[in-house]
Amino acid sequence: MYRETYLQIPGPTNIPKPILDALSSKAINHRGDEYAALMEFNVKHLKKVFKTKNDILIFPSSGSGGLEASIVNTLSPGDKVVAINMGVFSKRYGEIATSFGAEITWINQEWGSALNPNRLKDVLSKDFKNEIKAILLTHNETSTGVTNDLHALIRVVRELNHPALIFVDAVSSLAITDLPTDLLDIDIVVTGSQKGLMLPGGLSLISVSKRAWEAHNNASMPKWYWNFTPMLERMKVGQMPYTPVISHFFALKASLEIIENEGLENIYNRHKQNADAIRNALEELGLKLLVSDNKYSSNAVTAVYLPDDINYEDLSKVLEDDFNVIIGGGLQQLSGKIFRVGHLGNLHKPEVIAIVTSIEISLKKLGYNVTLGTAAKAASRVFLNN
Amino acid sequence: MYRETYLQIPGPTNIPKPILDALSSKAINHRGDEYAALMEFNVKHLKKVFKTKNDILIFPSSGSGGLEASIVNTLSPGDKVVAINMGVFSKRYGEIATSFGAEITWINQEWGSALNPNRLKDVLSKDFKNEIKAILLTHNETSTGVTNDLHALIRVVRELNHPALIFVDAVSSLAITDLPTDLLDIDIVVTGSQKGLMLPGGLSLISVSKRAWEAHNNASMPKWYWNFTPMLERMKVGQMPYTPVISHFFALKASLEIIENEGLENIYNRHKQNADAIRNALEELGLKLLVSDNKYSSNAVTAVYLPDDINYEDLSKVLEDDFNVIIGGGLQQLSGKIFRVGHLGNLHKPEVIAIVTSIEISLKKLGYNVTLGTAAKAASRVFLNN
Repeated sequence: MYRETYLQIPGPTNIPKPILDALSSKAINHRGDEYAALMEFNVKHLKKVFKTKNDILIFPSSGSGGLEASIVNTLSPGDKVVAINMGVFSKRYGEIATSFGAEITWINQEWGSALNPNRLKDVLSKDFKNEIKAILLTHNETSTGVTNDLHALIRVVRELNHPALIFVDAVSSLAITDLPTDLLDIDIVVTGSQKGLMLPGGLSLISVSKRAWEAHNNASMPKWYWNFTPMLERMKVGQMPYTPVISHFFALKASLEIIENEGLENIYNRHKQNADAIRNALEELGLKLLVSDNKYSSNAVTAVYLPDDINYEDLSKVLEDDFNVIIGGGLQQLSGKIFRVGHLGNLHKPEVIAIVTSIEISLKKLGYNVTLGTAAKAASRVFLNN
Repeated sequence: MYRETYLQIPGPTNIPKPILDALSSKAINHRGDEYAALMEFNVKHLKKVFKTKNDILIFPSSGSGGLEASIVNTLSPGDKVVAINMGVFSKRYGEIATSFGAEITWINQEWGSALNPNRLKDVLSKDFKNEIKAILLTHNETSTGVTNDLHALIRVVRELNHPALIFVDAVSSLAITDLPTDLLDIDIVVTGSQKGLMLPGGLSLISVSKRAWEAHNNASMPKWYWNFTPMLERMKVGQMPYTPVISHFFALKASLEIIENEGLENIYNRHKQNADAIRNALEELGLKLLVSDNKYSSNAVTAVYLPDDINYEDLSKVLEDDFNVIIGGGLQQLSGKIFRVGHLGNLHKPEVIAIVTSIEISLKKLGYNVTLGTAAKAASRVFLNN
């Protein structure tokens, strides 16, 4: 038996066929013209996706490697940094900075809620000497399905005329949710290849502003692999300081062609509509969402409280066995409390209907009281009204 | 027109079809059973290729990332380390350690020659207090085509009863040249995915001895991404601390099946025979090899002095245009002086004949005086006599 897989974890995503095909392109010389042309194409098109004129650097690593690179390239041990604990990945960003000797001021925000701009304002307002060097923000917190309001958060920084660099973890937001890097003048944006770009993991991609480069020149955290300077120098001549992931460079080109063809604004709208349809269906099933204020609901992933008497292992097993739909569980403090449905990447109306209905049937099979057809009806209503 | 590519740089290598096909496997859940089984298979078979019972860790990065990981996990700033400068990559290993505050004692060995065990003996003999914590060795120096005699080098360390950890950069030797990790009791062996394993770049693979783990517990160089502890913990349950390169895990399985099927000793012998055939052909053409003592000639790559009046750009261009044979140039101080022919990975007799003859014709086209058929004859003689 062969069945399609619905990989509805919040990344890695299902990989579209043209990208899968590109991954198996034959090896080429990483110091040759063909690779240089691939690099030029990818960087040029990535700038459109990042909405930036800043430099784009690409590291062979997971997205977390990109987070580490952003820290060690711009900061020195003892530097004061603001980090947010509002889920696994925002916490991770601060933990990475801690590992390299940054002094973190933590803002603890309840997991499932967005960072309140006033809390950031409070911290910055008390920084009379402007000692805070960087603010680590997470655009979309993958572990909770919360999308921060970057406009409001960054406005706070600008209104206080605070000079801190602004770093954004956009691993699960780039090419999913609008992220106007240059409009918001964001110094560092980090993403990974396995979310909105629909590749396997293996590349981190980073935009670096002029101010971040200035900080880089004075940053004394130790580094070799992540060093921005040789990476930019080599990338300018279409190479890398070490062996690149050539397969992923072919795949990235295929991805950027798909993205260009659909159009970024259409991609954002599709993600929003799919997310609305999925959430409408889940709520209509009587499920409670982790994110109570839908202003901050993620277009990439929805976290849902498990109903009483249904545990995650049973639900995910039925979904996988009966439908080949793979969902994610709660991480750390949310383990056993929620399940997560990823709806990022190459997802369209038929799959949305299939997924929410699979969840409905699985819940019913596990004893949950629901009228069949409810989820499809609720999702369809969103599609028809848009 | 479609032509086969002969990617005869010293890695990345030509990728065999089963590995290319595996790269385009559909995405799977990196926290699911299928991925865990893939991990288990790969680690189990990698131990055979590494000839070790030590732990194997796999990082999403290029091989250089693995070198950095080996340093930051086992050393502290100020630690004394011996590094060798005998080519680009041996030098790099020491430079990485320098970046993180190690105090390096450099042994400068002429590029193109192997590390003389007596020189290592001299350095260690003067270390009366056994302060040297680690010795960074490069098994095969990719930039020169020199393979060090690890047995002789490590014997020096053992005979002096010196307690330094022994690190081996095996990026261009693993699954190419015999490397008996446990027999030689090597503490750290680092390789990359794009050489003997015949994958694209994107994974570094590291074996870690018990003594290296003990050093890890006291090592204070800062780290997050490369931290061995969470990597081993997660790998033990079939996961990773961050998103893995799933495509490469499928490809690695395909590679390890190919390797198991041919057998490691056969692979070493085939590489040796191909290398001998290529060198015999090149010398018969009247070319001078960089490595004068063929006891240290690499089974992965051969560096050749450019003949008078022929420059690298012209030679590599004719080879590429007329034959789609891609060679490598000299790096750093060897730039413009040599060309390099990679003969690692999935290379067999017909390709060897094709490659040396392509070089012969290209040289003749550029005015070099040679009797056609010389290279094929010389290579064939090696094949017939083995």
